[in-house]
Amino acid sequence: MKQASPDTLPIIAITSGEPAGIGPDIILSALNESSFAARLVVLGDIDLLRSRAKTLNLKLDIKALATHSKLPAHQPGKISLIHIPMAQIAQPGQLNIANAPYVLETLKQAGEGCLSGQFDAIVTPPVHKGILCQTGTHFSGHTEFFQAQCNSPHVVMMLASEAMKVALVTTHLPLKDVSSAITEEALRKVTLALHRDLQTKFGIEHPRILVCGLNPHAGEDGHLGKEEIETIIPALDKLRSEGLDLIGPLPADTLFTPKYLENADCALAMYHDQGLPVLKYSGFGNAVNITLGLPIIRTSVDHGTAIDLAGTGSANHGSLNVAIQHAINMANNAKKFSK
Amino acid sequence: MKQASPDTLPIIAITSGEPAGIGPDIILSALNESSFAARLVVLGDIDLLRSRAKTLNLKLDIKALATHSKLPAHQPGKISLIHIPMAQIAQPGQLNIANAPYVLETLKQAGEGCLSGQFDAIVTPPVHKGILCQTGTHFSGHTEFFQAQCNSPHVVMMLASEAMKVALVTTHLPLKDVSSAITEEALRKVTLALHRDLQTKFGIEHPRILVCGLNPHAGEDGHLGKEEIETIIPALDKLRSEGLDLIGPLPADTLFTPKYLENADCALAMYHDQGLPVLKYSGFGNAVNITLGLPIIRTSVDHGTAIDLAGTGSANHGSLNVAIQHAINMANNAKKFSK
Repeated sequence: MKQASPDTLPIIAITSGEPAGIGPDIILSALNESSFAARLVVLGDIDLLRSRAKTLNLKLDIKALATHSKLPAHQPGKISLIHIPMAQIAQPGQLNIANAPYVLETLKQAGEGCLSGQFDAIVTPPVHKGILCQTGTHFSGHTEFFQAQCNSPHVVMMLASEAMKVALVTTHLPLKDVSSAITEEALRKVTLALHRDLQTKFGIEHPRILVCGLNPHAGEDGHLGKEEIETIIPALDKLRSEGLDLIGPLPADTLFTPKYLENADCALAMYHDQGLPVLKYSGFGNAVNITLGLPIIRTSVDHGTAIDLAGTGSANHGSLNVAIQHAINMANNAKKFSK
Repeated sequence: MKQASPDTLPIIAITSGEPAGIGPDIILSALNESSFAARLVVLGDIDLLRSRAKTLNLKLDIKALATHSKLPAHQPGKISLIHIPMAQIAQPGQLNIANAPYVLETLKQAGEGCLSGQFDAIVTPPVHKGILCQTGTHFSGHTEFFQAQCNSPHVVMMLASEAMKVALVTTHLPLKDVSSAITEEALRKVTLALHRDLQTKFGIEHPRILVCGLNPHAGEDGHLGKEEIETIIPALDKLRSEGLDLIGPLPADTLFTPKYLENADCALAMYHDQGLPVLKYSGFGNAVNITLGLPIIRTSVDHGTAIDLAGTGSANHGSLNVAIQHAINMANNAKKFSK
């Protein structure tokens, strides 16, 4: 392995996620088994991590970072941590509203640290929206939390597997509302944010983006829907005239085939179930969720808190591994780009 | 290879497809290279097949079947044919309206032969809808042609790859019209037809069907759409009470993962782009299109006429091979079931 000076390695903050869920479990097993060319720091309660390690029979060296001490390069079996205390001891599998403020505090410190330059990226294990909302806080997801914290007008949801990257124009909308949400303005904002982040965070100088139509067969010349002709094609043509390399609108069942995927950097789907079933299928459980359009880098596992698996040793850290690796790559690319 | 008496092998009729397209090419190369445990008969013009074989430099023995002569088991390099004359010589790549009646005649004879028991299944290479419609015939697809010929009230479109089978509740509808087309009646008819054909044509005694929700996350308890609660769940519950084994409604990006697919026989998607991108991705260009709900068996290649490739030798017969193999399996299953 190439030896890099620790000082040049990106600093990746990993929040602990919902303490009653598998967040602590997958952090422990990923950082115990895998090797990352980065300085990793967990934001969480040290007793939570130590006690979960004991439950899982994992022998890790977990140390709270002293103020102003330097973060070392990651070594399997060692965890550096910024201690954020929980209100009450967390029992695996038992959601506790008393610890909801703790969860939000880990996110807050992670975002602040990224904005101030203390961290280069955030990786988030799953939180439990329900328990966070019970505190009276409106919490609709990590994405919206960081969007508000960063005061970002437009964010883009991207999922990535080894085989492909898929970004979405609309995300969590009832299907019947999708057509009216596909406006030239929405397409423009999302496509520009995607293009920019492919350059700045993925190191792709001239991104080539495949764009799905909205309707089956991309509308088949208007026979199966007019949105392509009336909205999508004009929006793409305008963006092309500004220099973007966009292919489409293509039928979604044509786009997601090797002929197209191999010659492009990313696919842009019009809505959730047009793009994500094929992405998740291609990812074999190791997909990663990436928020674009933020001034910071944020990746996430692509699964829930699985509270029934917490403390059992059955949780799979594959998606967390990929999320950390993506965060490292993106942080390295962003450094190069800003030079 | 197990030797079966030719008389017990199913008889599969293969139409020639659009004569200016790659239909003849893929028939010639598939029947030259591959081996099928069936009696295959091509419905088409003998001069078209012989001349295309010459163009492609393929040495096949192509013989018109004498009336009442017995069809032999398929042997690579040999083609038995029921001669249906074209109006004019077909040039690869040049659509000719004069030959449109010929194309429709091959379909008509294939359907009649299946209905009369002369054939056990039909396999259809691609036709060109545009040229057929120019004759004044309303031709919207093979599916609708055979549906009308068989006087079948409800047909179901299924696509199959080696990895999965996906059937659709709605097919070629603009996306904005999908929600209102998902009625309890539509769900009931499609699901029952699918269940019945999985039994009769796929030999699955107790089919287990995975059903997608309509909305992202299958509506997430009504937060992302009400159709699951108001329509889909009641329809599935009624069918379950009648003995069907249905799983769902599941989020589409959860359903198409090994955990679910490995324990079921088929997925039922609510609309085209929810199910087909993942199916086509999984099929690597070798997906097959199957029409269910007909009294006959019909499979099809899953690609177009590719008229620019006709006569060049570049057409890939992978999908035709799979379509023939599916037709053979389905014909064998149907024979067992009817005993």
